[in-house]
Amino acid sequence: MNEEKIEREELEEEEEKLSTEDLRELITRRDVKALRETFLTTPDADIAEAADNLEPTELIYIFRSVPSSSTASFFDYLNQDSKEDLVEAMSDRELVKIINEQSADDVTDFVGEMPANLASKVLRVASKDMREDVNQLLNYKENTAGSIMTTEFLEFKEDLSVDQAIDTIRKRGKDAETIYTIFVRNSQRDFVGTVDLDDLIFASKEQKLSEIMNRDVVSCTTSDDQEAVAQMFRKYDLTAMAVLNDDGKLVGLITIDDAVDVLTEEATEDIQMMNALSGESGESYLENSTWKNAKRCIPWIIILLVLGAFSSFVLSAFEEKLATVTVLAAFIPTVLDSAGNSGGQTSAIMIRGLALGEFGPKDFLKVLWKEIRSASVVALVVAGFSFVWVIIEQYTGIVGAANIDGNIWQGNCWTGEFFLDAAKSAVLVSSTLFCAILVSKCVGTIIPLCAASLKKDPALLSQPILSTLMDVIALLIYFGFAVLIFQLF
Amino acid sequence: MNEEKIEREELEEEEEKLSTEDLRELITRRDVKALRETFLTTPDADIAEAADNLEPTELIYIFRSVPSSSTASFFDYLNQDSKEDLVEAMSDRELVKIINEQSADDVTDFVGEMPANLASKVLRVASKDMREDVNQLLNYKENTAGSIMTTEFLEFKEDLSVDQAIDTIRKRGKDAETIYTIFVRNSQRDFVGTVDLDDLIFASKEQKLSEIMNRDVVSCTTSDDQEAVAQMFRKYDLTAMAVLNDDGKLVGLITIDDAVDVLTEEATEDIQMMNALSGESGESYLENSTWKNAKRCIPWIIILLVLGAFSSFVLSAFEEKLATVTVLAAFIPTVLDSAGNSGGQTSAIMIRGLALGEFGPKDFLKVLWKEIRSASVVALVVAGFSFVWVIIEQYTGIVGAANIDGNIWQGNCWTGEFFLDAAKSAVLVSSTLFCAILVSKCVGTIIPLCAASLKKDPALLSQPILSTLMDVIALLIYFGFAVLIFQLF
Repeated sequence: MNEEKIEREELEEEEEKLSTEDLRELITRRDVKALRETFLTTPDADIAEAADNLEPTELIYIFRSVPSSSTASFFDYLNQDSKEDLVEAMSDRELVKIINEQSADDVTDFVGEMPANLASKVLRVASKDMREDVNQLLNYKENTAGSIMTTEFLEFKEDLSVDQAIDTIRKRGKDAETIYTIFVRNSQRDFVGTVDLDDLIFASKEQKLSEIMNRDVVSCTTSDDQEAVAQMFRKYDLTAMAVLNDDGKLVGLITIDDAVDVLTEEATEDIQMMNALSGESGESYLENSTWKNAKRCIPWIIILLVLGAFSSFVLSAFEEKLATVTVLAAFIPTVLDSAGNSGGQTSAIMIRGLALGEFGPKDFLKVLWKEIRSASVVALVVAGFSFVWVIIEQYTGIVGAANIDGNIWQGNCWTGEFFLDAAKSAVLVSSTLFCAILVSKCVGTIIPLCAASLKKDPALLSQPILSTLMDVIALLIYFGFAVLIFQLF
Repeated sequence: MNEEKIEREELEEEEEKLSTEDLRELITRRDVKALRETFLTTPDADIAEAADNLEPTELIYIFRSVPSSSTASFFDYLNQDSKEDLVEAMSDRELVKIINEQSADDVTDFVGEMPANLASKVLRVASKDMREDVNQLLNYKENTAGSIMTTEFLEFKEDLSVDQAIDTIRKRGKDAETIYTIFVRNSQRDFVGTVDLDDLIFASKEQKLSEIMNRDVVSCTTSDDQEAVAQMFRKYDLTAMAVLNDDGKLVGLITIDDAVDVLTEEATEDIQMMNALSGESGESYLENSTWKNAKRCIPWIIILLVLGAFSSFVLSAFEEKLATVTVLAAFIPTVLDSAGNSGGQTSAIMIRGLALGEFGPKDFLKVLWKEIRSASVVALVVAGFSFVWVIIEQYTGIVGAANIDGNIWQGNCWTGEFFLDAAKSAVLVSSTLFCAILVSKCVGTIIPLCAASLKKDPALLSQPILSTLMDVIALLIYFGFAVLIFQLF
């Protein structure tokens, strides 16, 4: 038993280490036996990770030496480049076996991104059914339920018995994407419910599907947004969902693995948009070229740099005031940061709440009112704190304002005049913060909700954009109060 | 058929609208039939959403009038408050039926958060098996695989035949969390593989499990981080995963629905941390009190306000210089924003890449070197652009610097002197941006990767913290260059 365990650990060790070099060595040695063994003991996703760096000729060797029962699902995990290399290098006869073992939605995904000549080669070798399915799926718009569904589902009549259903599954189930959820239709061919495979197993053989099926079924239509659909998987703990067309007829099936990919992609996309990154989320940072990674950063930095002209303009307009009361400059970064940050918190709550379906555009007023109350509390607390803090900063000389006669370190402070001047700065900063936080949190609420109403991505309001916008607003508030308080007319 | 369709639509309409009031009306009318019908036609998650706002007495009425076969899974979807109300109000006899229908991991979740008297009431009515399972699960640390697994799995010997296995599933499967994945052990009771239910269905009845089982199994241990485990579900397209203890023995099972919840929670948590929100992610914005929502925003805004003292200090130290060359102030917000934003982009890439397992702490040097190259490109392009842009800003008078004789609008520009002064500012801004972007992107790379090495959450480096930190660094660079370029010694 101990030996067994050590063996297992060694195996695990080995598995962990499966590298491109390991694979390459097996291929160079023409060690077909070890190669086949690898496919039995190592998950396909791991082999694919190592194989993506092989040369096309090496990759093809794998497909020629390992039985297609093992390589079909392995093919699915390869990256787009490897798939294109394979399609290009393989003969039609070799390709037939691989392609027709894939599910239609996976084939659609990689065919959709292939150069035309390779795509047509794939469609040429695909079976008639597969070709029709792929062509149909290619017509659905990106990011809709239609684009992630598959057309290979099982649909039984409601008067079928459990026994007949299991028999049919044994016969026809291998071509389906899943046999764990079976769709049930009535005599009018309307979709009326689902039966889970475990219900079939537990039911007695003579029962009709109509007796054991779930009638409280969650479904979606082909044009629904894929993110909303994926969130339904989470909310209702589904493993598969029926997709209906606009006439309410069953046309497809989405499985949980595709929903998980969508959830992950959409979260990645939101995080990237919220941080002003452009470009696609599906890319790999380490594999991208330096220029490609840089290109994702540059556009927004430049756009925001240009938009920064508005704050520069405001600052220039008030530069005489800045020269008169030099203490003004000292608090600018803090005020701008607080304004931007507090709005960023709110927009993050909105973007995530909308993504998870916690609230929707229809709750606009309810959410806004909720946020105005909460923002007032935040603004009040922060303003109160900042009043004390700004006095402390001046008292300790962290901010040694030129227009104040001295500070604690120069032993020249706490005169009435000092206190008046320090208090003026404190009033200025705290009232600016109060207004700026309120405005910033309202903007951070309104823009994502409006975007959602207009069917745009709420994450388009990134923290950097909000900060740049709030810079201008906060500066105007700041100088407005400064003119009043320091009487700089 | 048309009528059917209209009926279906009406039904859907009705489903969509199931509100607390609808439920309350059924309960007030004591309309048991309609109540039972609701449970057949509406997903449990939706009923629970409406029921969470009912009074405890109303909620109990549901459990007393609807068969427990329907209410058991409904109970799981209720929120913690409703569950506590029910446990408090129900008799032991009523509770037995509900509790023992739950899966052990779900019971563990809500018992773990209950006041002691209610928790002990639940454990008192739980069956012996359930009680042992829950007590065991309560011992696993939060956020580990152990804390989200369930102990109700099916484990068969490898020499069992397919036929025997299906028979046993029919008998014992109802207590298991899933029957779609069955674990296989050898005669030494070691975990050796899994059999999916569809493999059982498609296999011939006499085959042994050892012949059809998958040997390339992905598993985790109880102490593994739940996020890493959830990412494995995504990577390997799993619907269930075996959990082993430190001795390699099978102790539990994690199903895809729990993994999906973890993926969603962790993404929410990252987004909130990245935007300087404190507190728990599981809370509901609309249901929280105003003060609770405000409390999530206040801590970091105040901390960052205090940390802002460093930039105030730097600005104060250079205030004489600011008064001499007033154009300096105009570019401060832009320079600080660009520095913070470009670092935020990088830290977002790092945080997400680490979360998705695209790279890990072991790739530290590789990632840093990759980022240094890409950051140099970004810094160079932005610096180049800003040089031109700063000249344009001054030429057009957006920034009407006092130390420059005039601008385009005053018809007094493009003299040699103007150009020299404008070029000085442009050199200042662009060289500051070059250095600040480089530093910011390196900090944005290093801190998340270090956090991951120390097993801390990489998202702890929020964009606001990075911005506040970069404010100080960027200001020092800015004034350093200003002293050199404008010779302000």
